[in-house]
Amino acid sequence: MKFKALAIDIDGTITDTDRRLSLKAAEKLRTLEVPVILATGNVLCYARAASKLIGVCCRIIAENGGVITDGFDKEPIVSNHIHECEQAFVILSKVLDMEKLDSSLRKTEIVLRRNFDIETARALLETTGLDVEIIDTHFAIHIKSKKINKGTGLAKMADLMGLKVSDFVAIGDSVNDVEMLDIAGFAVAVGNADRVTKIAADYVTDTTYGDGTAEAIDYLLSKGML
Amino acid sequence: MKFKALAIDIDGTITDTDRRLSLKAAEKLRTLEVPVILATGNVLCYARAASKLIGVCCRIIAENGGVITDGFDKEPIVSNHIHECEQAFVILSKVLDMEKLDSSLRKTEIVLRRNFDIETARALLETTGLDVEIIDTHFAIHIKSKKINKGTGLAKMADLMGLKVSDFVAIGDSVNDVEMLDIAGFAVAVGNADRVTKIAADYVTDTTYGDGTAEAIDYLLSKGML
Repeated sequence: MKFKALAIDIDGTITDTDRRLSLKAAEKLRTLEVPVILATGNVLCYARAASKLIGVCCRIIAENGGVITDGFDKEPIVSNHIHECEQAFVILSKVLDMEKLDSSLRKTEIVLRRNFDIETARALLETTGLDVEIIDTHFAIHIKSKKINKGTGLAKMADLMGLKVSDFVAIGDSVNDVEMLDIAGFAVAVGNADRVTKIAADYVTDTTYGDGTAEAIDYLLSKGML
Repeated sequence: MKFKALAIDIDGTITDTDRRLSLKAAEKLRTLEVPVILATGNVLCYARAASKLIGVCCRIIAENGGVITDGFDKEPIVSNHIHECEQAFVILSKVLDMEKLDSSLRKTEIVLRRNFDIETARALLETTGLDVEIIDTHFAIHIKSKKINKGTGLAKMADLMGLKVSDFVAIGDSVNDVEMLDIAGFAVAVGNADRVTKIAADYVTDTTYGDGTAEAIDYLLSKGML
């Protein structure tokens, strides 16, 4: 089956652990005829810059599905769950020493430096009754609404593009990619992916990071899937 | 002479006219042993993303010198000239149909879509007595303070790094790079540069855009200048 679009994570999937772009992956992404949607836990302006520089401008799922846009200058669709996340942060930060990152740019969730015990935070969060979760993407720790994820983001993007989620190939490496991989028509995990992400994938690459994405694109093109 | 750092423009210098990163230029920049400073008219979060993705994180001159930072998570030094620019915009937008771009992210100047007559705007600005100027980078039109430019930004960055401006090589393509090229120890204009930018350069590359930057880096390395 030929898919109609590709949704792909940025950090760890087309970059290395230092967030350096894989030039090999960028080159492959530029060859694709189908639209490429960047789906990231990062903020919109970071993802917009990435989409311009990579050359796949400008359909973006940012903040793990909290912020969606299908054009560079378009007003994004922004979810309204930051309040619950702030409530959770107030409670958790009384017990744990937490440092917010890029908070002025982030609209729908809270991102923290990875310098506290996440299990302690999760246990504490259980007692609050708030409908939020804590996830670790290996690049940062996110306090996010359980109602929002890259899967709900992909569904919104599919609507904007007049497509079905089953029309998409999705590629990722981390726990915050799982819902997107679960609903996409075909799911790829790069070789460095978490165990749960690999379990969610239809295809796991032998190679890691950007090399894995390049390998996946070669595979998909060779099978006539993209 | 061996220089101690490289300051380089982004749009049109390491990208094409669509702001797509030159993978060749990125590869060359990654080989350098000296610090690479991105100097752009764009906003800080765009430049930070570029510095991470290119792999030259994270000393940045953004907003044409209005915003300076020498670390990814560091609070930037932000100039206080936006008020004059806003005054100019209020006057000009009464006569000309102007569209602000990324205004929520921009801290020190005003950027407009390139869809109005810049000479009419300049003539009108002359009558205001405001100490601001209008420049066209070919990517956008900027209303900016005359007190701030990439040259003043480079001087601030040199102070932060404990260097002299003469320790820097600078590479650019546009009118907003001229002051930086003027004060750097050695100035390069890529082949697609404006006439005034080429005049400010010690070396003009035969090739254009990212190919020009790659050519310049090869030249500087071959001469032991970087």
